[in-house]
Amino acid sequence: MDILILGAAGMVGRKLAEALLDTGRLGEGEIARLTLFDVVPSDLQSRGAVAVETRAGDIADPATVQALVAQRPDVIFHLAAIVSGEAEADFDKGYRINLDGTRLLFEAIRAQPDYRPRVVYTSSIAVFGAPFAEPITDDFVPAPMTSYGTQKLIGELLLNDYTRRGIFDGIGIRLPTIVVRPGKPNKAASGFFSGIIREPLAGVEAVLPVEDDVRHWVASPAAATGFLLHAATMDLAPLGARRCLTMPGLSISVAEMIAALREVAGDDVAALIRREPDATIRGIVAGWPRDFAPDRALAAGFTADASFQDIIRAHIRDTAAGG
Amino acid sequence: MDILILGAAGMVGRKLAEALLDTGRLGEGEIARLTLFDVVPSDLQSRGAVAVETRAGDIADPATVQALVAQRPDVIFHLAAIVSGEAEADFDKGYRINLDGTRLLFEAIRAQPDYRPRVVYTSSIAVFGAPFAEPITDDFVPAPMTSYGTQKLIGELLLNDYTRRGIFDGIGIRLPTIVVRPGKPNKAASGFFSGIIREPLAGVEAVLPVEDDVRHWVASPAAATGFLLHAATMDLAPLGARRCLTMPGLSISVAEMIAALREVAGDDVAALIRREPDATIRGIVAGWPRDFAPDRALAAGFTADASFQDIIRAHIRDTAAGG
Repeated sequence: MDILILGAAGMVGRKLAEALLDTGRLGEGEIARLTLFDVVPSDLQSRGAVAVETRAGDIADPATVQALVAQRPDVIFHLAAIVSGEAEADFDKGYRINLDGTRLLFEAIRAQPDYRPRVVYTSSIAVFGAPFAEPITDDFVPAPMTSYGTQKLIGELLLNDYTRRGIFDGIGIRLPTIVVRPGKPNKAASGFFSGIIREPLAGVEAVLPVEDDVRHWVASPAAATGFLLHAATMDLAPLGARRCLTMPGLSISVAEMIAALREVAGDDVAALIRREPDATIRGIVAGWPRDFAPDRALAAGFTADASFQDIIRAHIRDTAAGG
Repeated sequence: MDILILGAAGMVGRKLAEALLDTGRLGEGEIARLTLFDVVPSDLQSRGAVAVETRAGDIADPATVQALVAQRPDVIFHLAAIVSGEAEADFDKGYRINLDGTRLLFEAIRAQPDYRPRVVYTSSIAVFGAPFAEPITDDFVPAPMTSYGTQKLIGELLLNDYTRRGIFDGIGIRLPTIVVRPGKPNKAASGFFSGIIREPLAGVEAVLPVEDDVRHWVASPAAATGFLLHAATMDLAPLGARRCLTMPGLSISVAEMIAALREVAGDDVAALIRREPDATIRGIVAGWPRDFAPDRALAAGFTADASFQDIIRAHIRDTAAGG
């Protein structure tokens, strides 16, 4: 098998690449080539029978995308995106990468004769906007409140149409907010959801800018990798024409997160969370969805994390392993 | 006021232009210039105080669109589109005109400093796909089953986002199927809805390719013009961030249409309808929506035709007037 990951240098893209290299397989297939594309080169190396090819470039450059697709990968994971905050701050960049880049990819596939790869597209719960139902079902109207959510939803619509026309076999998966993100704190408004777990576990104080009763929809990095692998191998025909699914997650409050941290790591660790309300972040988070009923994804075999305690334990294991 | 109509040579665009020329006004404003743009030049002439400028060109050509917007019209009616059947038959053309053309228009507006026009965008009930609720409410998920519907829905999402960002003050109106279309029969699968009224009234036999119990969502050309004029002048702030509305129409069966024709024009006219079932057309029409509950549009002051009898009588008047 020949596999292409667009956005391979991001956190989820890298976890996915590592999972593929760990097994050398995707479903029933043995992987011969894994091409890793992003704006910066990946440092992952060939392993076992899997030849890793690293490419760096601009997904909004037609020749770049055409060259990637000319290898005719069997499966294309499309995770490349400008994230929410940056797409809001830089209108042109967001549309160029998130919309034009996606469309260029789809068009490059269409230009290849007798070629119909599996395309796994990462969308986001940002396609939904307030006022929300609780829970948000698969029948809830997507109405994005950001340019990022708009761009992701347009990608979903294109994916559905290109799939319907037989150009590729596509599936879009709307990822929950990923917690616990490894690495340094970032400036994303959602960063504290990871920070209040990651920093105390590392013996560092973490700031909690919202009330304890704030609730959100989260999944672990490992669950996200599992979604991607399942999406790449499952039979898509039962999905019919609507190929984009909200992924399962945990609807959990900050209080429940902290209780889980206390249970797993003790009172001293949980005591490293300092409450410092931030009206701006509270305002942003108030516009985020809190709970979903992802029935279609569950019926299609996608599975959420078992518990937030498990998410914390997995993060501890990954950190110990240097991941 | 300075007004621009894109798609001015189409049936609805022409009716709109005529309505503006008839009164010389749009809401409270006196119209000084009316620019009519389409792939073919309009033959409408300046009237009273309204200077008509006619332009012919390609809406997917950036320089063409930039030149139109450089006049900084106060209101832009965007009706230019490749219709459903053609967008399905010609993938590139549909995306080029319906998606790229719309985006070029929105980008040309964004490029003008200190400019925030009213943009009225015609969308379509083709943004909805089976299986349908009955009636289809404003909370029903759009899931287009054609490239045309996909392109129209992407335009809606762009309009919402550009409006939210303050680039223009936009509204999208999803038009019902327009009945009675004047002129010659066309090859659209929906053509018979007009044909079974128009041809018998002209003393010509009409073919009915579907069963009498087929039901669809229709509005008259005059109602469509009314929607556009109201959309151009109403206060849009109460709509909030969701600027695209399903327009009111009549949910009517073929049997009810024929009964109305008999009531208005007599048995001899209605007898000119010949039943000749066509499995292909029946299949296509089976995938179309039958009934809507357009509550948001009704609350916003849009009004449907009073009855199908009124639609027939208006068509008779228009035909007698040479319209």
